[in-house]
Amino acid sequence: MASKDWQTIAQGMQDHRARTIAAVEPAVPDVPDDLPLNVTQIPKKLLPEETIAITELTAEQLLPQLASGRLTATQVTKAFLQRAGLASKLVNCCTELLPERALERAKYLDDYFSEHKTPVGPLHGLLISVKEHIGMKGLDLNAGFVSWVGRIAPDDAVILKFLWKAGCVFYVRTTQPQTLMHLETSNNIYGVTVNPYNTKLTSGGSSGGEGALLGLRGSCLGIGSDIGGSIRSPAANNGLFGLRPTSFRLPFAGWMATMMGEEQVIPVIGPLSTSLEGIQIFMKTVLDQEPSKIDPSLVPMPWKTESQLRHKDGKRKLRVGVLSDDGIVKPHPPILRGINTLVEKLKTHPDIEVVDFPPYKPDEAWRIIASLYFGDGASEEKEAIAASGEPWRPMSDFIIKKNPFVKELTVPEVWDLTIEREAYKAAFARHWNSVGTGLPGPDEKDSSTFAGPLSEESEEKLVDVVLCPVGPSCAPLLETARYWGYTAQWNLVDYPCLVFPTGLQCSEVDKVDSDYHPRNEKDKYNHELYEPKSYTDAPISLQLVGRRYHDEKVIEAYEMIAEAAGLPFS
Amino acid sequence: MASKDWQTIAQGMQDHRARTIAAVEPAVPDVPDDLPLNVTQIPKKLLPEETIAITELTAEQLLPQLASGRLTATQVTKAFLQRAGLASKLVNCCTELLPERALERAKYLDDYFSEHKTPVGPLHGLLISVKEHIGMKGLDLNAGFVSWVGRIAPDDAVILKFLWKAGCVFYVRTTQPQTLMHLETSNNIYGVTVNPYNTKLTSGGSSGGEGALLGLRGSCLGIGSDIGGSIRSPAANNGLFGLRPTSFRLPFAGWMATMMGEEQVIPVIGPLSTSLEGIQIFMKTVLDQEPSKIDPSLVPMPWKTESQLRHKDGKRKLRVGVLSDDGIVKPHPPILRGINTLVEKLKTHPDIEVVDFPPYKPDEAWRIIASLYFGDGASEEKEAIAASGEPWRPMSDFIIKKNPFVKELTVPEVWDLTIEREAYKAAFARHWNSVGTGLPGPDEKDSSTFAGPLSEESEEKLVDVVLCPVGPSCAPLLETARYWGYTAQWNLVDYPCLVFPTGLQCSEVDKVDSDYHPRNEKDKYNHELYEPKSYTDAPISLQLVGRRYHDEKVIEAYEMIAEAAGLPFS
Repeated sequence: MASKDWQTIAQGMQDHRARTIAAVEPAVPDVPDDLPLNVTQIPKKLLPEETIAITELTAEQLLPQLASGRLTATQVTKAFLQRAGLASKLVNCCTELLPERALERAKYLDDYFSEHKTPVGPLHGLLISVKEHIGMKGLDLNAGFVSWVGRIAPDDAVILKFLWKAGCVFYVRTTQPQTLMHLETSNNIYGVTVNPYNTKLTSGGSSGGEGALLGLRGSCLGIGSDIGGSIRSPAANNGLFGLRPTSFRLPFAGWMATMMGEEQVIPVIGPLSTSLEGIQIFMKTVLDQEPSKIDPSLVPMPWKTESQLRHKDGKRKLRVGVLSDDGIVKPHPPILRGINTLVEKLKTHPDIEVVDFPPYKPDEAWRIIASLYFGDGASEEKEAIAASGEPWRPMSDFIIKKNPFVKELTVPEVWDLTIEREAYKAAFARHWNSVGTGLPGPDEKDSSTFAGPLSEESEEKLVDVVLCPVGPSCAPLLETARYWGYTAQWNLVDYPCLVFPTGLQCSEVDKVDSDYHPRNEKDKYNHELYEPKSYTDAPISLQLVGRRYHDEKVIEAYEMIAEAAGLPFS
Repeated sequence: MASKDWQTIAQGMQDHRARTIAAVEPAVPDVPDDLPLNVTQIPKKLLPEETIAITELTAEQLLPQLASGRLTATQVTKAFLQRAGLASKLVNCCTELLPERALERAKYLDDYFSEHKTPVGPLHGLLISVKEHIGMKGLDLNAGFVSWVGRIAPDDAVILKFLWKAGCVFYVRTTQPQTLMHLETSNNIYGVTVNPYNTKLTSGGSSGGEGALLGLRGSCLGIGSDIGGSIRSPAANNGLFGLRPTSFRLPFAGWMATMMGEEQVIPVIGPLSTSLEGIQIFMKTVLDQEPSKIDPSLVPMPWKTESQLRHKDGKRKLRVGVLSDDGIVKPHPPILRGINTLVEKLKTHPDIEVVDFPPYKPDEAWRIIASLYFGDGASEEKEAIAASGEPWRPMSDFIIKKNPFVKELTVPEVWDLTIEREAYKAAFARHWNSVGTGLPGPDEKDSSTFAGPLSEESEEKLVDVVLCPVGPSCAPLLETARYWGYTAQWNLVDYPCLVFPTGLQCSEVDKVDSDYHPRNEKDKYNHELYEPKSYTDAPISLQLVGRRYHDEKVIEAYEMIAEAAGLPFS
């Protein structure tokens, strides 16, 4: 049992955070009492010009300036420390700032640059924010549980070592929810992280600290993690780019969470960024260093820079499958407006072919993945919460206590579910292969038990990427992010997903459809949440999904789509 | 409960096999009563000249003749059917021949060739043998359990579909042990499969039917499977090439075994062949067809044909780590002679650097893998055996009932073991990185918790491949193949392994070391088995291991080693 009560422990952590923010120079401004719901413009009002000028830049804008000496690492570090501190005061997104470490690192980089007239590596002087549960040597590693406060990381997580070697600066750690299994960010150590576009909404989760921080430009590139939507929900809710890479591309040793050793559903680390290029820089920098030689769970697959879309003869169209509605929970009108606006533009483009991509048993996918997450009956989470006496946060209660699929399983039951998971994955691949090709889908009468090799003719017609919502609404109202279907399905099949902002926002134009008859309880819950005024200013984001290990293709397809449609819309 | 007793069921299967052998034309000769221990030369005495001429060819010799029409698929099919039938009479290696299906397929291929003057695909007319538990539509799929006799495969296993599309002929199915978890091949349906080089020895297992069949040239290319040595032990025992590929390169859906859904240790399918080229042809043919589009558990990694060894400037040496003895069970003198003979030749070669590769905790590896195999307490195997009343074969008893690591685990216990497995894998990678580079090994005092990126200097010095035994003896005496350490360790870390024949054989030159003091009980058991006369004529084979997904590099390294040393020795 903890020697202090949980409130005292939490207060200690908050005091520590306040001290790290207070240590920043130039000082982090205080925030006024009467803030608007949308606080995204507040930093520009409160911060010095130099801080604003630097922090509004994206990774690919900052890097050449750092590499050429036009900006020093120290300048950039000070600017992002200041803005991150302010962001945390506005939306409660950081667990601590690291001014001392970061400035020491920046000085090293600047000294190196002075001496050698060349950057340390491809990330020289770039500031990277890090979700708390990704360990940093000597710092707390509590993963959102009060009882885990005081666990100190023995070393930097492996991914941090690769980024560090490339020359980056770590300067801030960000919030996550209790259990890490919310699509929101709320815990008993720091409270609730809210959305900078509308503070009545969630910043998403579980990488919601990252999402909110980047949404306020307190960071241009951050590291999150995702086992059911935890990179994508914050990226979407805050109008960012976020990549859930295919599993086993990026090293994850050195993070802390419950469910360690569970591998029926593989968690991944991935980047969130204010620009697409930030995502690519992150992936390429890590993969160029061949992390599989250190972490042998990784597939030794370099980040491909050659085109993954161009056909031998250069003629093949980009085939985009569109899945607007998974048939279980209908997305709110703004999401459908976002997807329809984009699709209409794509339809007129000569090099893009849009096809309808029907959903494939998302409820079955959820049953399997939700059962596999908590094969121990969530005993670890229950113990970690009970150990400090902290209360259950509402979304922990929802995903564990109210979740009918949380059961203590036997090993043979896990094996059976794994067989079902593999069958679902094979069926889903067959479904994908059937769209647009005329091949039989997995459940058609004339289907053989197993699919065989594709003909060249079918290969020609395969869908390249699927465009779909990230969730059934824009950033949800607090404590309502209950439907994981649009993200978790892709974790089950382990397909890479890129979240991107459309540039559109929720507004009064999207009326409630009062004639709608919900299909089921989940659909009813989501439908009844919608009221345009509740979601004012929330960014409308979408998701682009590719086949397993086609991460680069997804990004290339996005670039083609963005150019064709003129993204972001304004 | 079965409606018949197990003996009746077994007899029925043996009768069926006899009928399929009797249906072959030209007829399979009877075998004389007084056979020598080494029966490898018997086929040449009993078979017609044309059968011998065809079946002595390797895959790469047959394919151009088939593709040019100098040999018809029918000729080749008849020859291999006849020789496979004889092989089965000699060493009990087949579960059934498929003369009708095979000749029908051959006719189709020949007709196609007559009409189009071109082969169907890269395997046009090549005969491929298949281990029984890899399903063939409409045929029995019993995996070596009497109680599973009568389970009929609903479809061809996925890998067969890819080979079929490439033009091959399936003509024979081969034996496997009860439970599939022996390094021998003995079940209650067909009895014991023995080694053609010395019928007092085992052909190995669990793909021991393949091993024995290929050893007698009743096949030039076969499919086995491996979760602890099951491709490599038969390849080694019968003087063949055998590849245990890295996991998730070849599709395995459609096979039948216990432990389905267990994925802490990934089983793989792989080829055995009478030639190295046969292995390469197999891998390239399947991977060229992108099986990951059908089986999404696979990594979409083509079979690389560009050099994996050549350095940018072409100057780097091949660095071969040598692990002769794992420190637990010392290999018998013939194995050490094999490895030393090869190493002495390599040491003088200017382009090859030989370094000592110390073992890394093989006992720890065995504890982890043996615990993870049977997380259900082997309940499936126990039930499958009990259901027919068949007796436990001695090696089933050894690996399950006598195995201290077989325990019914809880899900959290499996997770803990998985964490230990990952830690072992990371430590092993660190060990590999330390050999020859001067980097600290995993257990050195100054080692950080996690390894970080390697310097270019260290990269230059990394070991490329490890040369080691396949087991602590040549083909073991029946019921003595009890030490899995030399193969199962590589399953745990999931490194690709190529088994190759040295061309040397066991003989009187290797005396017993009577001064040897065994290190432990396992070592004592192995040491006491050795007596040169017991192993007469057994092939001496070795294993070449690469890092995960470096399958192609292993093969290229073998080619370089073989050329440098003049393999096979004679």
